[in-house]
Amino acid sequence: MAKDDINDDEVAREKSARYQKGWEALTAIHGETGMAVMEEMKKTSPEMAACVIEYAFADHYARPGLDIKTRELCTIASLVTQGGADRELEAHVTAALKAGATKQEITELILQMTIYAGFPKALHAMRVVMDAIEGA
Amino acid sequence: MAKDDINDDEVAREKSARYQKGWEALTAIHGETGMAVMEEMKKTSPEMAACVIEYAFADHYARPGLDIKTRELCTIASLVTQGGADRELEAHVTAALKAGATKQEITELILQMTIYAGFPKALHAMRVVMDAIEGA
Amino acid sequence: MAKDDINDDEVAREKSARYQKGWEALTAIHGETGMAVMEEMKKTSPEMAACVIEYAFADHYARPGLDIKTRELCTIASLVTQGGADRELEAHVTAALKAGATKQEITELILQMTIYAGFPKALHAMRVVMDAIEGA
Amino acid sequence: MAKDDINDDEVAREKSARYQKGWEALTAIHGETGMAVMEEMKKTSPEMAACVIEYAFADHYARPGLDIKTRELCTIASLVTQGGADRELEAHVTAALKAGATKQEITELILQMTIYAGFPKALHAMRVVMDAIEGA
Amino acid sequence: MAKDDINDDEVAREKSARYQKGWEALTAIHGETGMAVMEEMKKTSPEMAACVIEYAFADHYARPGLDIKTRELCTIASLVTQGGADRELEAHVTAALKAGATKQEITELILQMTIYAGFPKALHAMRVVMDAIEGA
Amino acid sequence: MAKDDINDDEVAREKSARYQKGWEALTAIHGETGMAVMEEMKKTSPEMAACVIEYAFADHYARPGLDIKTRELCTIASLVTQGGADRELEAHVTAALKAGATKQEITELILQMTIYAGFPKALHAMRVVMDAIEGA
Repeated sequence: MAKDDINDDEVAREKSARYQKGWEALTAIHGETGMAVMEEMKKTSPEMAACVIEYAFADHYARPGLDIKTRELCTIASLVTQGGADRELEAHVTAALKAGATKQEITELILQMTIYAGFPKALHAMRVVMDAIEGA
Repeated sequence: MAKDDINDDEVAREKSARYQKGWEALTAIHGETGMAVMEEMKKTSPEMAACVIEYAFADHYARPGLDIKTRELCTIASLVTQGGADRELEAHVTAALKAGATKQEITELILQMTIYAGFPKALHAMRVVMDAIEGA
Repeated sequence: MAKDDINDDEVAREKSARYQKGWEALTAIHGETGMAVMEEMKKTSPEMAACVIEYAFADHYARPGLDIKTRELCTIASLVTQGGADRELEAHVTAALKAGATKQEITELILQMTIYAGFPKALHAMRVVMDAIEGA
Repeated sequence: MAKDDINDDEVAREKSARYQKGWEALTAIHGETGMAVMEEMKKTSPEMAACVIEYAFADHYARPGLDIKTRELCTIASLVTQGGADRELEAHVTAALKAGATKQEITELILQMTIYAGFPKALHAMRVVMDAIEGA
Repeated sequence: MAKDDINDDEVAREKSARYQKGWEALTAIHGETGMAVMEEMKKTSPEMAACVIEYAFADHYARPGLDIKTRELCTIASLVTQGGADRELEAHVTAALKAGATKQEITELILQMTIYAGFPKALHAMRVVMDAIEGA
Repeated sequence: MAKDDINDDEVAREKSARYQKGWEALTAIHGETGMAVMEEMKKTSPEMAACVIEYAFADHYARPGLDIKTRELCTIASLVTQGGADRELEAHVTAALKAGATKQEITELILQMTIYAGFPKALHAMRVVMDAIEGA
């Protein structure tokens, strides 16, 4: 498949119902900051941006069965545990607050993560999270 | 410090307000299964059992600021992400159900974890979680 | 959304072009064993099976730009590094052989992983991989 | 390079001063159990066994500058932290005891690992370690 | 529970015997740098600072059964293995030197970690550790 | 063993056939950039530099049985999965291109890693990889 065909594929991809559904979920959850991050990723890799929008947002966050606030808190728990994802951690703290989580709920969660992820990861996360809360 | 002094310390430790507060939280959240696991761990290592009861349960789960259902779902997210903790995963699925989480909320969470923890960990967790839900 | 609507969604999902494309890629790469694993996963969680077929197989393995043999060897490298995924490791060793990788290429890769994933993970992987090669 | 040449290489490899030095260190630290594990690994993959003997034992454990007891305790700390290495964990507990570590030193270390590796990994390790101590 | 009650709890917490015991262990092991790090963390999250002082220092480092030098070397092994904890790694290298570890013992440990944590983590740690040794 | 003896050992080490074989493989695969990184590491820790040259390059990359292009792509897969190794990731992207991998093969691999390593690690890797490709 030639490079031009791939570019054509990407254009078609963005017009699909799945992509549109994902973009709407992204916008509703992460607002203008989330849109800006995706526009930036599209310049780096349109395929990667499409994977995020289609798989993470259309196939998961847009599904019923678990409210966005709980989804965001669980994502924070996963990010603290794997470490090395400060950028995503900040974005999901902002999204959790937007979905109705309180500052106290988020900090209680980080404290609880000392049990499961260990202290070095939880201590680092507390610094990142408090900065994101101040900036929100 | 001689071995006997350490044993005396353990006896005193179990009488402390902190240990009692932790044991109550453990009982409320994990029921008889949780108590049995801790009695078994006390035979292996009374110090380790005391750390779990005092630190995890008295210092964290007994704190206000985040409800037990959300704490349990976030713990599940962390356990799926780090992998290798099937025993804890089962226990926290049972505790999440006991705290009012639905089967669908838990399975949605595991599906969402494909995004953050990757497919191999989420696929394995889905098998463990579905067994725990059946057995609950 | 009621449970019946979700089941209807799953039926519609399996008829989609994306699901069909993924199922074809799965069949071509993993053969009857892969189909059996997916049928089993569908009983545990039809949503999880659909995520694997649609996202892993339709959105990635079916894409041009990287041959299946190289994709499989890179997947093996990732699985050895994260650990705890013996079942997937076996399946991808079988798929790598089917795609034309030699036994020696796979064992060289596992030896090389001592450098990046450390010896405990590589030693364990060598045992799993050699069993999979014998059984292939 | 043909398969026979590789086998010839392995024979030559085992005669090298580096291999011999590693084998002596392995024998001194892990005794007959360690030798048996390596003989088993040689049947699975002679190259992997040679990597362990040459790199781990000749290039590291045989070096001066850090005593074997401390090396073993640090290895245990690393294994608890990465998880999924029960077999190595047992072997290094036995080696630590052989090098003069006390049962109490090893269990204190596992308790301390709750701080850095998190409770699920430390709890699992305590079970494995206590079994290894009983069996030693 | 209102915010003021939580603040009152924190004040009471710092007066407890457990907190005082932890603060003394922290001061003895990490000196003025450790105290400064904790004062900084108290501004970010007094609860997190209390968890570190009470759980890590009062409940573990202040316990008999394993000397501080060995505790510090094992902590370094754990931090190298999990990665992403440069700040803690520096602090524990300084503490290990203060507890009597030699520069050579620490660098031998980092070399040994190539076996268990893999080369990328050990190479990165060697850079961080050598900087901490120079600055000590 | 005194410090001078260790320095003498290092000088002898660099003259060995194994070290020379490793240095040649390093030069062939990573070119002048790789040599510069090793010269820098020799100033930080000559023993660590020797471990990389001898173990990674002489004992693995110089072995037959797996071509350098595939070795480099598999190393990239491992580095994305473990995270926290941007410096090595850049170096191995450059080496993969030098060994004949195309830009598209590398980006397809990073996209595929969303499945196994999760999105946060793959998204971060895509940014690092695209920078390395631009700079190559």
